[in-house]
Amino acid sequence: MSANSAANSIPHPTVIKVDPFVPADKQKGLHNRWHPDIPPVASVKPGQTFKVECVGMSRVGGALGVQAYDRISDWTGGQIGNNDSSDDVKNVDLTKVHNLSGPIAVEGAEPGDCLVVDILDVTPFEKMPWGFTGVFELENGGGLFAREFQSRACKAIWDLNGVFASSRHIPGVRFAGVSHPGLIGTAPSHELLAKWNKREGELIAAHKDAVPPVAYPPEPIGTHVGQDLPKEVLERIRKEGARTIPGREHGGNCDIKNLSKGSRCYFPVFISGANLSVGDLHFSQGDVQMSFCGAIEMAGIITFTTSIIKGGIEKFGLKQPIFLPSPVDPMYSQKLVFEGLSVDINGDGKQYNMDAYVCVAVNRTVAYKQAALNAISYLQKLGYTREQAYLLLSAAPIESHVGAIVDSPNACVTLAVPTGIFENDILPRPEGLLKHNYGQCAIRSDGVL
Amino acid sequence: MSANSAANSIPHPTVIKVDPFVPADKQKGLHNRWHPDIPPVASVKPGQTFKVECVGMSRVGGALGVQAYDRISDWTGGQIGNNDSSDDVKNVDLTKVHNLSGPIAVEGAEPGDCLVVDILDVTPFEKMPWGFTGVFELENGGGLFAREFQSRACKAIWDLNGVFASSRHIPGVRFAGVSHPGLIGTAPSHELLAKWNKREGELIAAHKDAVPPVAYPPEPIGTHVGQDLPKEVLERIRKEGARTIPGREHGGNCDIKNLSKGSRCYFPVFISGANLSVGDLHFSQGDVQMSFCGAIEMAGIITFTTSIIKGGIEKFGLKQPIFLPSPVDPMYSQKLVFEGLSVDINGDGKQYNMDAYVCVAVNRTVAYKQAALNAISYLQKLGYTREQAYLLLSAAPIESHVGAIVDSPNACVTLAVPTGIFENDILPRPEGLLKHNYGQCAIRSDGVL
Amino acid sequence: MSANSAANSIPHPTVIKVDPFVPADKQKGLHNRWHPDIPPVASVKPGQTFKVECVGMSRVGGALGVQAYDRISDWTGGQIGNNDSSDDVKNVDLTKVHNLSGPIAVEGAEPGDCLVVDILDVTPFEKMPWGFTGVFELENGGGLFAREFQSRACKAIWDLNGVFASSRHIPGVRFAGVSHPGLIGTAPSHELLAKWNKREGELIAAHKDAVPPVAYPPEPIGTHVGQDLPKEVLERIRKEGARTIPGREHGGNCDIKNLSKGSRCYFPVFISGANLSVGDLHFSQGDVQMSFCGAIEMAGIITFTTSIIKGGIEKFGLKQPIFLPSPVDPMYSQKLVFEGLSVDINGDGKQYNMDAYVCVAVNRTVAYKQAALNAISYLQKLGYTREQAYLLLSAAPIESHVGAIVDSPNACVTLAVPTGIFENDILPRPEGLLKHNYGQCAIRSDGVL
Amino acid sequence: MSANSAANSIPHPTVIKVDPFVPADKQKGLHNRWHPDIPPVASVKPGQTFKVECVGMSRVGGALGVQAYDRISDWTGGQIGNNDSSDDVKNVDLTKVHNLSGPIAVEGAEPGDCLVVDILDVTPFEKMPWGFTGVFELENGGGLFAREFQSRACKAIWDLNGVFASSRHIPGVRFAGVSHPGLIGTAPSHELLAKWNKREGELIAAHKDAVPPVAYPPEPIGTHVGQDLPKEVLERIRKEGARTIPGREHGGNCDIKNLSKGSRCYFPVFISGANLSVGDLHFSQGDVQMSFCGAIEMAGIITFTTSIIKGGIEKFGLKQPIFLPSPVDPMYSQKLVFEGLSVDINGDGKQYNMDAYVCVAVNRTVAYKQAALNAISYLQKLGYTREQAYLLLSAAPIESHVGAIVDSPNACVTLAVPTGIFENDILPRPEGLLKHNYGQCAIRSDGVL
Repeated sequence: MSANSAANSIPHPTVIKVDPFVPADKQKGLHNRWHPDIPPVASVKPGQTFKVECVGMSRVGGALGVQAYDRISDWTGGQIGNNDSSDDVKNVDLTKVHNLSGPIAVEGAEPGDCLVVDILDVTPFEKMPWGFTGVFELENGGGLFAREFQSRACKAIWDLNGVFASSRHIPGVRFAGVSHPGLIGTAPSHELLAKWNKREGELIAAHKDAVPPVAYPPEPIGTHVGQDLPKEVLERIRKEGARTIPGREHGGNCDIKNLSKGSRCYFPVFISGANLSVGDLHFSQGDVQMSFCGAIEMAGIITFTTSIIKGGIEKFGLKQPIFLPSPVDPMYSQKLVFEGLSVDINGDGKQYNMDAYVCVAVNRTVAYKQAALNAISYLQKLGYTREQAYLLLSAAPIESHVGAIVDSPNACVTLAVPTGIFENDILPRPEGLLKHNYGQCAIRSDGVL
Repeated sequence: MSANSAANSIPHPTVIKVDPFVPADKQKGLHNRWHPDIPPVASVKPGQTFKVECVGMSRVGGALGVQAYDRISDWTGGQIGNNDSSDDVKNVDLTKVHNLSGPIAVEGAEPGDCLVVDILDVTPFEKMPWGFTGVFELENGGGLFAREFQSRACKAIWDLNGVFASSRHIPGVRFAGVSHPGLIGTAPSHELLAKWNKREGELIAAHKDAVPPVAYPPEPIGTHVGQDLPKEVLERIRKEGARTIPGREHGGNCDIKNLSKGSRCYFPVFISGANLSVGDLHFSQGDVQMSFCGAIEMAGIITFTTSIIKGGIEKFGLKQPIFLPSPVDPMYSQKLVFEGLSVDINGDGKQYNMDAYVCVAVNRTVAYKQAALNAISYLQKLGYTREQAYLLLSAAPIESHVGAIVDSPNACVTLAVPTGIFENDILPRPEGLLKHNYGQCAIRSDGVL
Repeated sequence: MSANSAANSIPHPTVIKVDPFVPADKQKGLHNRWHPDIPPVASVKPGQTFKVECVGMSRVGGALGVQAYDRISDWTGGQIGNNDSSDDVKNVDLTKVHNLSGPIAVEGAEPGDCLVVDILDVTPFEKMPWGFTGVFELENGGGLFAREFQSRACKAIWDLNGVFASSRHIPGVRFAGVSHPGLIGTAPSHELLAKWNKREGELIAAHKDAVPPVAYPPEPIGTHVGQDLPKEVLERIRKEGARTIPGREHGGNCDIKNLSKGSRCYFPVFISGANLSVGDLHFSQGDVQMSFCGAIEMAGIITFTTSIIKGGIEKFGLKQPIFLPSPVDPMYSQKLVFEGLSVDINGDGKQYNMDAYVCVAVNRTVAYKQAALNAISYLQKLGYTREQAYLLLSAAPIESHVGAIVDSPNACVTLAVPTGIFENDILPRPEGLLKHNYGQCAIRSDGVL
Repeated sequence: MSANSAANSIPHPTVIKVDPFVPADKQKGLHNRWHPDIPPVASVKPGQTFKVECVGMSRVGGALGVQAYDRISDWTGGQIGNNDSSDDVKNVDLTKVHNLSGPIAVEGAEPGDCLVVDILDVTPFEKMPWGFTGVFELENGGGLFAREFQSRACKAIWDLNGVFASSRHIPGVRFAGVSHPGLIGTAPSHELLAKWNKREGELIAAHKDAVPPVAYPPEPIGTHVGQDLPKEVLERIRKEGARTIPGREHGGNCDIKNLSKGSRCYFPVFISGANLSVGDLHFSQGDVQMSFCGAIEMAGIITFTTSIIKGGIEKFGLKQPIFLPSPVDPMYSQKLVFEGLSVDINGDGKQYNMDAYVCVAVNRTVAYKQAALNAISYLQKLGYTREQAYLLLSAAPIESHVGAIVDSPNACVTLAVPTGIFENDILPRPEGLLKHNYGQCAIRSDGVL
């Protein structure tokens, strides 16, 4: 009897399998460079549902303090543990980053097509139901407030319980995840890759001595392709392969929280088979993701289906991916909104507005930081430490909007905190705010903050 | 019989009345400078519901091309008409801007308190059920793409029909307004005003020759206080009064679309009575409000109620206003999302990333512009002109989010267009996009674009 | 100069004007019967935006206790006052109900067409910013719990403040209105009217002695047509005109809260011009509207635009109206949900389930009542009186859903109360519920409950 | 190193394991009666996250045509297959239904407490990524329209792809699941059980000859307790155990679609340990669930955490469970709404309204059916068959609301179909509806409909 039913119950195939407890460079099916000559490690048909396993990928690097971005952080290999000390974050060896699962060829995809990718699900490994958010040391990673806070390592471990995340390091909050891949994209063509290397090379050349570097050129050391390749092919990849740090025209490291499970993405196809790669799964992330590892980083499984729209690049004027967000975004409709202005970021009352072109842009970052500081200050009134607030605003489904960009000299940026993620009432009340003791997140064993 | 019912039917009082067809500087109850010595023109009790009428206030000025911000645009006085030519925009005399209704004293509010302001409604005048969105000439106002587009004047007139706006100049769209005041705030104390003037003055001094100016100092010419004042008081206001262009710690010109009808705002109180002022009503606005007059500007009526939280500044750590958005924001849940990267804004393929501190900020503006250009390009495939798309993305309930700020050298910014505002299906389809003929928005009578 | 702007600012025309303080039967443009021979009192063109004024129309009648439905409640004429006693409700003279504004002809509409009606706005009169919700006496109107509660008259007066309603009679709550017409429809053809009269006549004949009557036949007394008509036409209308109490194939008295401002409705057209009529405006209503006058009844103004789809009845298989709800429904995403079962409605533990066909239906009503009683009981724990809770659950944006209809003998119905409408936290907490003193709603001057 | 990380990665324990391909009565940990003497098969601590596996449980029985409810449908044991014929539905042996996983004791829960149950996730088995919706034969199960449609067996197999369901039998639709347990509850005390048996027994006695029966008394045959018990205990359970068909005060078979993953439930506790049981998982369901097996039935895994509120029954007046719906309900904001009236359900134009008490209730069911028929008729204009439409409206996230219950003789019920679940545009357009060929669902091999 059940033979019939069991027989016609076919699980969705897992086309790339990885072990989250083994270093990425010891595993097949992972790579950390973008290059058209990395052959697909799996192939799927349009319309097929399939799963891809991903190792944990810490959100490392950044413009405001990273010392060495050219290194991996295989924290799931044991560097960052599910424990109550941030010493592992303090001492993390930032080496080879962004191990992507792939490439995966989609049969029939040709340059000029649009590859439609449905992100059907994003879940942690059943055997690893936790993730982390970290602030890195000023000297070893940094973060948005690296300088203002003179950042010392701290972290929060998040328990992933079905649709929710909660943390013993940040009590009193629980929120539904908008789980998504931080990094997803199709492979570049040789032409596109050359264009990237040219423009980024020029930028680097123009800012030779910048610390941190303004961009990262191809780097043979640490290049990993996850398969055996002829020597000359491997050499070419090591020499030309684009780093995975920035997002580019093919997608890549976008860290868009709304690209969550249930979303449909439209990618341009640059080579035969499209060669899709994915990694850096986040259980949740706020807009901006302000601390160094601001999302809830996790190892896990992503489920896809694909289809092809022939000639889609031309049909849709597809210069970069476009997407339709998921219908299952959490509905935290009530929000408490903080504003920020482009003044006084260092407590000196200074007015920012540098020159005609740059001013607005800088203002917006200063304004965003002020909004974040205002929110942190409010959360401190409720009993959270500055470190807890910083981590929470990075990882929870925070929304940030820009009011307008033409009200010189001040930009106005908002940061919206959903009230429904808090166990206790956080609304402003005539009697003031009720302060709880929420302890502290994981800090260094020497107690230095 | 009805005597009874009629007698106990008491309309909400209108505490400031204006005529949208009369120049602002000829009217009482309007002012265009922030100064603690402008006496209240009305007084209300906490808990009282009251209405305030506002003249239309064009969104003028901006960092990227404005030549003269020190001028009014009393378009409701006839400069910008409900017609089909943009000559009025081309020739607009940008002189005295931001005529605010107020100040309104709230009985019992004292420095250190928090003034809770409920925005109960925002509607156009019944006799003026229309508004406009404009792109200004490169040489006379500009806008976000002033340089890229070599902007020439164009505009769209919006018919305001109950909860919806639609435009004969941008056919095929209709959307529910998130009506809000672009500008609202409490009066500064003398100390706070001095602080503003100092920091803005230093900025101006440091950028003496900037075009457009980086900020605008107090300016006696054009100062309007809407009431008769002793000469020495008027002179002080003219000499010290802060311009209304930027938002500041008291609120001010924030242009936050989510501060819409139904929202509750928490303002810091700096002087006795709080002295609330409001103006620049928008029927709708997208995040960022990218064209020069990017919102749907309207004259109209705002309804308020207030309460006071004693000592609220200390209770909530209130450095700037915080607010709770309205529960009646339009629910356009399906959105088409465009990404942008910080490259190639001028078509030269250039990579942006200037120096260690500024890069991220500039990248974000470049990235936002690229996202906007990608959206404009898509809308053109549907049949809209570049000008129509530019106006539409400014005025409709567009959402813009920042993915992350640490993926050097590229920032990734998204711009989300709700599909439900379009009459026709705009989703990417295998067969491509269906192009309609939507005509053109209002342009110059000489036809120059 | 402003001559221009003022001249091209044309208000939306008001095609029917009424005075909420004058009895309906003394006014032109109002009628209280459905009949194809009532000529239009106004005519509009497709695409035109126009306003219609409506008198207040109490929600009277009902199946569970009404004694006389054939009577008017012109409360706005003074019967129900904005005061703190429910004596007016107790003594209300229920005579001629449902005074509709109209008919309004739409040029070009023909039988077989679909009349698309956009409800652009629904607002109270500026001079009458209040409404009421009432529970009527068991013997004079009743309500869902008329028998269980041995209902005595009580009421709540609601202050309508912009998008919000609040009541001195039910402190601690404030909610955004889903304002809508309780009653809207096109005129029936002679054939359709005959069909109604036949089927309703048969029902009445089969249940001759039912108290209250199962339906109401045409009744010459009290018939009002709002215009001078030839005597034989008037006689025909008085003799045949369908009562406005039930909804029918043309729309009519549907009391659908989601048919709110911003909705688009598709009505079948039965006669030339369609002859649209509207009335019974509600500022807000919960699903089911359980007390006698369960919505927030108001006099006010509704704004429309229309279009015609030729042959729409056939194109869409339009047996009854269909509609698209508004995009601006309030977003109270967090809800506390109560269940009800079809048992024990009288405290006797009895199981309901009568016969094979009827059981499910009765179960659902019993189950709904149990859910409502469970919610009332919970609200009483918070400090509301039973009367306040009853009124609140009728008027606030409550949602009610049916789980399934096949779990014999019990049906399961849910009633969802949005938590965001309460000033204080109402969630179940480990420490229990905090009870406030919310006083009492307006009751009879003799104090009888 | 990774030893560390692997070691502190502890999966959530699965406290009850079942095999969906083995008949329920051959498995431990499943039971199909409610009785306080069924001992817990697992025990958990408050605060612990744990998983429970459930077999597929077909939604069988019902008031409108079921012949024998006292039988199992272990379709997952092979009766209902993932194939393209409905012969398995036609010939299904409806015997022992509702196999629940449990009971699960929660340490410390005592009578009078409130058991807080968080439904953290609900997923299908990885090895069985499909479910089904069925209409059963008029003579063997039936459904809401069993008589009107003279129902013949048909079904749709749904592929469960991450957050979405789609079906080869109903092409052109895809929707996000609101996955939930159809059946969940705490164990009754002896007193409560006796009360149930008494009231249901009285009902049965009063309707002895009803076909189908109005309720189902305890039945020794088919009783399954999933564990070895002393003979006298087993006999008692067989003799007294309440059937799982209806929902009752402890929860039970509620089929509430909003009780979905992410919801928090508050159950009354009647015996020590609370003894929670769960089953009948649904990937998705519409309000009402109108066909016989109207949800998407699936076998799968539910994840829970619990806490205890001491004395919660008294604290919250907990007569039945209350719950907070999940923040991750799908956001299909645009809906097309159909109305129904209580007339003409058999095409004879008859007006329903039986007697003073019953009328409203019956009207509502007739009205609901009319609304459903109107929606089915519309879907047929788009190209769906009646059977496809019937299945789709049962399984998709349809919302049904009741307008008001006092507009005698007609009730008005609405049924809202989210437009976003359709691949093609389904809105009413001036040019009419575009009809596609969507084939047919799985029907009988003899082709009889």
